[in-house]
Amino acid sequence: MAGGFKYTRRVQFSETDLAGIAHFSAFFRFIEEAEHALWRAAGLSIGKAEETGGWPRVSASFDFKNPLRFEDEFDVEVHLTVVTRRSIQYGFTITCRDTLIGTGTMTAVCTRRHEGKMQAVDIPSEVIAKLRGVLGGGSG
Amino acid sequence: MAGGFKYTRRVQFSETDLAGIAHFSAFFRFIEEAEHALWRAAGLSIGKAEETGGWPRVSASFDFKNPLRFEDEFDVEVHLTVVTRRSIQYGFTITCRDTLIGTGTMTAVCTRRHEGKMQAVDIPSEVIAKLRGVLGGGSG
Amino acid sequence: MAGGFKYTRRVQFSETDLAGIAHFSAFFRFIEEAEHALWRAAGLSIGKAEETGGWPRVSASFDFKNPLRFEDEFDVEVHLTVVTRRSIQYGFTITCRDTLIGTGTMTAVCTRRHEGKMQAVDIPSEVIAKLRGVLGGGSG
Amino acid sequence: MAGGFKYTRRVQFSETDLAGIAHFSAFFRFIEEAEHALWRAAGLSIGKAEETGGWPRVSASFDFKNPLRFEDEFDVEVHLTVVTRRSIQYGFTITCRDTLIGTGTMTAVCTRRHEGKMQAVDIPSEVIAKLRGVLGGGSG
Repeated sequence: MAGGFKYTRRVQFSETDLAGIAHFSAFFRFIEEAEHALWRAAGLSIGKAEETGGWPRVSASFDFKNPLRFEDEFDVEVHLTVVTRRSIQYGFTITCRDTLIGTGTMTAVCTRRHEGKMQAVDIPSEVIAKLRGVLGGGSG
Repeated sequence: MAGGFKYTRRVQFSETDLAGIAHFSAFFRFIEEAEHALWRAAGLSIGKAEETGGWPRVSASFDFKNPLRFEDEFDVEVHLTVVTRRSIQYGFTITCRDTLIGTGTMTAVCTRRHEGKMQAVDIPSEVIAKLRGVLGGGSG
Repeated sequence: MAGGFKYTRRVQFSETDLAGIAHFSAFFRFIEEAEHALWRAAGLSIGKAEETGGWPRVSASFDFKNPLRFEDEFDVEVHLTVVTRRSIQYGFTITCRDTLIGTGTMTAVCTRRHEGKMQAVDIPSEVIAKLRGVLGGGSG
Repeated sequence: MAGGFKYTRRVQFSETDLAGIAHFSAFFRFIEEAEHALWRAAGLSIGKAEETGGWPRVSASFDFKNPLRFEDEFDVEVHLTVVTRRSIQYGFTITCRDTLIGTGTMTAVCTRRHEGKMQAVDIPSEVIAKLRGVLGGGSG
């Protein structure tokens, strides 16, 4: 897929486990960091709930192909794979040099806080436009 | 499904995020803790690579239905959903009081270290027997 | 010191690092968990900012004597070591079976949110009374 | 102090807590990341136990002056504050734009694995020379 956004990062010591590799739960932080880096590149911040609503995750998955080790520098490539009125599904591919580390997806729903509860709302149209602007073409 | 193994845990402060709920990546630690508690209940330890081989994860997924908050006490119910010659897929259901928090799966492959690399090997038969002994019946 | 509060916990796989021991940053989560368990035992919750104020940490330290390993079950003993009008210093001793793992301190300040900023305020007197009630005598 | 090494980093979403700020335990990961970045800048890796020995921590402390929030970009400045035959004490200063976030120290001991146990050994002399080479002058 052309037009993805690339986030680069290094495995930190605290992210390894006794098997000597990055712990599998760390990958879900890696993909979230890539999502937020994409938002920043688009001039947005997922932390600003007043503008964009909060974005609780409804699902996340990852398929692990090869391990990452301490100090490995890796790339997370992000795409928008499915956009609905109220949700975004991101697709992620992690590589380290020429090795495929794994692929994952994450779906987040646009919400606003209403009387103390999170309520799903329509995604502001400029959010998708700005994200697609970074990802390039219609491909992202 | 009858016959699951139950692991009970409380949400800690460091597991919450600025949205005031348990961070989605924490759920993957919760399900792993439940897996290891099941192993301990079966008289096994996933940390003893010399006996059982290491168990790298090949996939993990979670569907989030409701959030967990600071100090919520929740249950993780574990089942063996698919057992092959070299892999175990676990299924997990997290509940908090009467609320479904979400469901997930994790697949791990039995390996041994061979000349510095992890190599898939057959699961020792007593491992499955002991895990099933805890889970009860053929259902687990 | 007599009269401490004891919190018991097990080292989880994700808390180990490639050296095969619990990562040193995990100990700061362990002592915080013990602090919050003490609060719960006293009928309080540090999460209820409206009642007690938030408690940002002003300092934390730990001296490491022996490592903790995967699945080790350990005790954190908590004392109140210094109480001032607006702050509490806790002292912590971690042991595993008969081995001293290490000792630490943490100082937290009582605050309230005032026009979006955290402001130090006097500790509500019943908070100290309730904590001391759990710790026993004047020693805690 | 002149001659420090500077490591720059951004606060990630998963590092915030329900109080809306970076969790205090995250700061100990921040300073360790800075230590390891210094080692890399010196052409060393703390992960290569066969060359340099492992470096278990014997103490760590941090004084928190101001909070860090989601997406804040901050600097960690590292110095060698005390070097003995077998240990290094690092000093850390974290700033965010012009604001002092806090200061900390961490002491690590040079060890080798001997018959399954960690044993303190003399620091290889080129390690200190290389670290000082990055830090500049005698000041680092």
